[in-house]
This record gives sequence, C-alpha cells and structure tokens, in this order.
Amino acid sequence: MSDLPAEFALIARHFRPLAGPGALDLTDDAAVFAPPPGRDLVVTADAMVGGVHFLPDDPAGLVAKKLLRTNLSDLAAMGAAPLGYLLTVSVPRDTPDAWFADFAAGLAEDQAAFGVSLLGGDTTSTPGPVSLSLTLLGTVAPGGAVLRSGAKPGDGLWVTGTIGDGALGLLAAQGRLADPTGFLADRYRLPRPRMNIARQGLVSAGMDVSDGLVQDVGHLCRASGCAAEIMSIQVPRSEAARAAGEAYLPLCLTGGDDYELALAVPPASAAAFIAHATGQGVAVTRIGGFVAGPPGVRVLAADGTPMALPRGGWSHFA
Amino acid sequence: MSDLPAEFALIARHFRPLAGPGALDLTDDAAVFAPPPGRDLVVTADAMVGGVHFLPDDPAGLVAKKLLRTNLSDLAAMGAAPLGYLLTVSVPRDTPDAWFADFAAGLAEDQAAFGVSLLGGDTTSTPGPVSLSLTLLGTVAPGGAVLRSGAKPGDGLWVTGTIGDGALGLLAAQGRLADPTGFLADRYRLPRPRMNIARQGLVSAGMDVSDGLVQDVGHLCRASGCAAEIMSIQVPRSEAARAAGEAYLPLCLTGGDDYELALAVPPASAAAFIAHATGQGVAVTRIGGFVAGPPGVRVLAADGTPMALPRGGWSHFA
Repeated sequence: MSDLPAEFALIARHFRPLAGPGALDLTDDAAVFAPPPGRDLVVTADAMVGGVHFLPDDPAGLVAKKLLRTNLSDLAAMGAAPLGYLLTVSVPRDTPDAWFADFAAGLAEDQAAFGVSLLGGDTTSTPGPVSLSLTLLGTVAPGGAVLRSGAKPGDGLWVTGTIGDGALGLLAAQGRLADPTGFLADRYRLPRPRMNIARQGLVSAGMDVSDGLVQDVGHLCRASGCAAEIMSIQVPRSEAARAAGEAYLPLCLTGGDDYELALAVPPASAAAFIAHATGQGVAVTRIGGFVAGPPGVRVLAADGTPMALPRGGWSHFA
Repeated sequence: MSDLPAEFALIARHFRPLAGPGALDLTDDAAVFAPPPGRDLVVTADAMVGGVHFLPDDPAGLVAKKLLRTNLSDLAAMGAAPLGYLLTVSVPRDTPDAWFADFAAGLAEDQAAFGVSLLGGDTTSTPGPVSLSLTLLGTVAPGGAVLRSGAKPGDGLWVTGTIGDGALGLLAAQGRLADPTGFLADRYRLPRPRMNIARQGLVSAGMDVSDGLVQDVGHLCRASGCAAEIMSIQVPRSEAARAAGEAYLPLCLTGGDDYELALAVPPASAAAFIAHATGQGVAVTRIGGFVAGPPGVRVLAADGTPMALPRGGWSHFA
C-alpha cells in the first residue's frame, strides 16, 4: 500500500530510469523474466539502517552504492554473476527530492559498473531513520557455487585486498582517527566487491569479510569442520592502516565492513589462483592456513604466540 | 555486517527452521538453487514499517503473515506460483525473544499454507520502529504472466471477495468503528491472497487491490490505455461493511489494504472464469467494465450519476 503522497511520481522520476528488462517499468505488480537457461540462481538480501550501518549525513549516493555493493560482495564470495535487484526504501516523510536524486544517481553509476539493473521494489514512509533493504539475484554454473563448507586441512587461507580499512574508516569518518588522505573513510563508505575472483577449481571455500576477519574465518571453519591459523604479520594492511600504528592491529583483525574475500585455496591451485586474481587486477595474500582440529581460529603474533583479541581469536563454536 | 549481539543465535533458533531447499541453512553468503526449468521468474518486494503499515501492538505472527501475504497477493495478481522468499528484519535492540518466536511461528504457518520457504535474509538493529522487507520469488509459464496492460474496451471489470474491509478494519483496529465480531479488524490484519484465480485465457489483465479500488483500477486503465466504469452498487461488501452504513461506501471504494484482485475478463471467457474461481472457493463479482476513452475511472451511484469521491473517482492520468 502506498503511503507517501508523491510515491508514484517519485518512483517514475527516480527509479524507473533504473529499471531493467523484466521490470515492466516498475508499473506492474511484479517483475517477470526468463532466467538464463542452464544456470543456478543465487539470491541474497541485506538491510541497512541510518545511524547503524551508515552515518546519517553520508551522501545518499554513497549509501545506495554501499547497499548494492554489500550484496554484490555476497555474490562475489560464491563466485556468482549478478543479474538484477529489488529494493525497498523507507524514508521520513520530509525527505527532500534531492536525496532520492542522489540515491538513484549512485545506483545508476553502480548499475553500469557491475552490469545489474533494478527489477522492482517498494517505497514507504517511516517515522524512524532511513531503512533500506536490497535483494540481489545472480547466477552461477550448475553446482558451481563456492560455499563456506569446502575448506580442507592443508588449504591455504587467502584474502583479497587489504584488511581493517573498514573498521578504521568508520573511526575516521567519525573523526576519531586521523585520515589525512581520506582513504580510510572512503573504504568504509564504499566497499569494493571482489567479483570474478572466487572460482571453483581454484578455491575450495570462501566468504566475504563483513563481520571481521577472525569471526568470518571462524564461520568458514565451522562450516568446513576444521580449524584455521592466521599469521597476523601476513595480514595485508593498507598504507593508511599501517600509519595508524600497531595499536590498531587487533581492530584490523576483528573489525567489520572490509568486504574483501577470505578464501581457502588448495596448494595445488595456488599458482593458478594467483594468476587468475592478478589478471583481474586484485591483489591476494596468503595469511595462514586451514588445519585439522575442532572449528576455531588461532591468530599468531609475530613471535608465533597466540594473540589475545578483544573478540574472536581462538574460540570453539560447538 | 551483524550488529545485534545475539544475531547468529537468534537466526539459528527462529529462522533456520524456516529455511527451504537452496537456503543452505542460512549459514552461507547467499542461497543457491536451480530454478524450475522452462518457467519465467516472477519477483516482487514489499516493505512494512511499524506505525505505518501495522499497528505497534499487532501480534508479531500476524505482522509476519501480512508481510508475506501482501507479496503473495502481488504474485497472485500475475497468475504466478510462489517459490520462496528473502526477508530482512530491523528491530529495536530490546526486542524480546518472544517477539521473534511469534514472528517465526506466523511465517511457519503461512509457509505450510502457501507452499513457500525462506531462502535468506538479514537481521539488524534499528533505533526506529520495526522495519521489515520481504522479496518473494515465484514462477509462471513462459509468457503466461497476467499483466496490468491487457484490458480492452468491452472487458468486464471483476473483483474477488469483498471490497472495503481493509480500510474499515483499520478504523476498527484503532477503535474508531464498531466491529462486534472482529471481522473487519481481522481482514485488515490478515489479507487473503487470491492465489490461482488470475489466469491467462480467462482474464486479460489484473492487479491486486492494495491502494484502494478506484485508484488501482485507474492503474489498470493507464496501463491498458482505456477507461473503466464502476457501478458502486455492484461492488461486493461484506455483511460487516454494510452494517457500518452507506456513509462508509466512499471509503470502501477508495481505502486500501483489501488485497483482493481486480481483473479484466473478456465476455467470452466470463462463464469459464466464474467456474474456475468458484472451483477455487473464491467468490467473484462483476462490478463494471472497461470502455474506450482516455485512462480514468468513473464511479456511478445507484441512480447512474457519477459519484464524487474523496480521492480517485474520475481522473485523467495523462
């Protein structure tokens, strides 16, 4: 049920230009399309709330991109290609038209960058903060999805990009950490989903790092029924993250919002994996490995002793 | 990124039992499944916000059902069969576990009733009211979706069930209208999506009535490029709605939340359409017809004169 007085005009003005094949110009009850034949469907959904997942004064276009990209990152983790998305937007009644224009402009840019289009959605009012939800559909070759459950003892543990920028970037965006170049805040506000990196045959398991490296590697361990060791000095950190000082290393290892990939790579495919990722322009780093044992993550300091971490660290989930 | 301290336990306890094939127990980054071969996909999404789309003290199980059913109603309008859904739930941090238990119990009942299962989603906190979003996936025979755009002058305008109970039910739930049996409030809180009624070959166009009969028939007219006439005395009202008195007729014609279907039925298929709907246990009523002319809706009073309505009525959208 529509409850925003200008809902239809608003949708026509800002969202209809984003509508892709099957969306029926957003004027019907649902989108209809023939899925690519002979492919599995991959679907994921994420919600973002103002004041919780983004800062109230973050530009709407960046918020839109972050929402789309966090979902793209989930598809990237499974080795899936994105297809289209549905979006629900709940906003205060006095939200200015310029907010929607900026929000839609951000989506338009990322639709072009990632090859997706809008399939449908809903726009409502809320007495609370901006509340967003996005469902992303994608496809993968039948049985070709990379799951969390495939890691085996002996596999290397690899990550894309750099780790910790998201958590440090939140501090920077809040004015609680120096960020002279703005690099860290930008990393917090705008994830870079690592599409086309996770691929069956090269990796045995994977997920995206959104809740903190140690906790997320713990999820891989739990799903795969093995343990993992992380060599903290091998964890790649950006120049800006290193400039913050070693006191921030624990936060880099446990903070959220990186949207890099953590991947299990069998030794036999490591060379091909590196070549593939490099060909995609994405740096990958081996930070440890999977070992036999009850599910859990051991993080080792430079001297080889286990690190005590504020959360995560060695833990048993059973 | 998870931000509810007990998010994982909460998902495992309440949502994992709802997970269907392909959902990977809600423990991976996305759901993966092979879509039914040779079918078109139909996807729709709706958001609901506490204090806007439901009353703050509405039972969580009913809210969950309403959210699922409003989406089912969109699929019903297109003649599609539901497959599965993704759900995002943003709740205040102090939301009691019992709320989730009731919410999930409502979903479980409706999953059984409508043959759908949970594919994925997200749970977050919010400083605002409960904010929900549901994306429903379904399928239809290739090219078999019933669209809004197929109505032709000469087609009859038909509705399922009774019209106006949703708007009167909101008044009743707010204590602003007598509702001795509770029938009206129940109709507001729990839509009955009319699955398996809209079918190509029997109907030429359709949509669900969620924003008010007159406005929604206006959407059919705009999409189909013709006009419609509604005979107000033919519009089926429930016994409870009639008991409220004729003063409420305009509200019945323009109020929202009915989740019945408005369908264009060619005269040649009217008999088959009635037989089909009756076989499904759903009453259908002809309330007027489509006529040539610029898109718009004329509502006629018992004496044949156009009714003036608070919103809707005869209007041009061009």
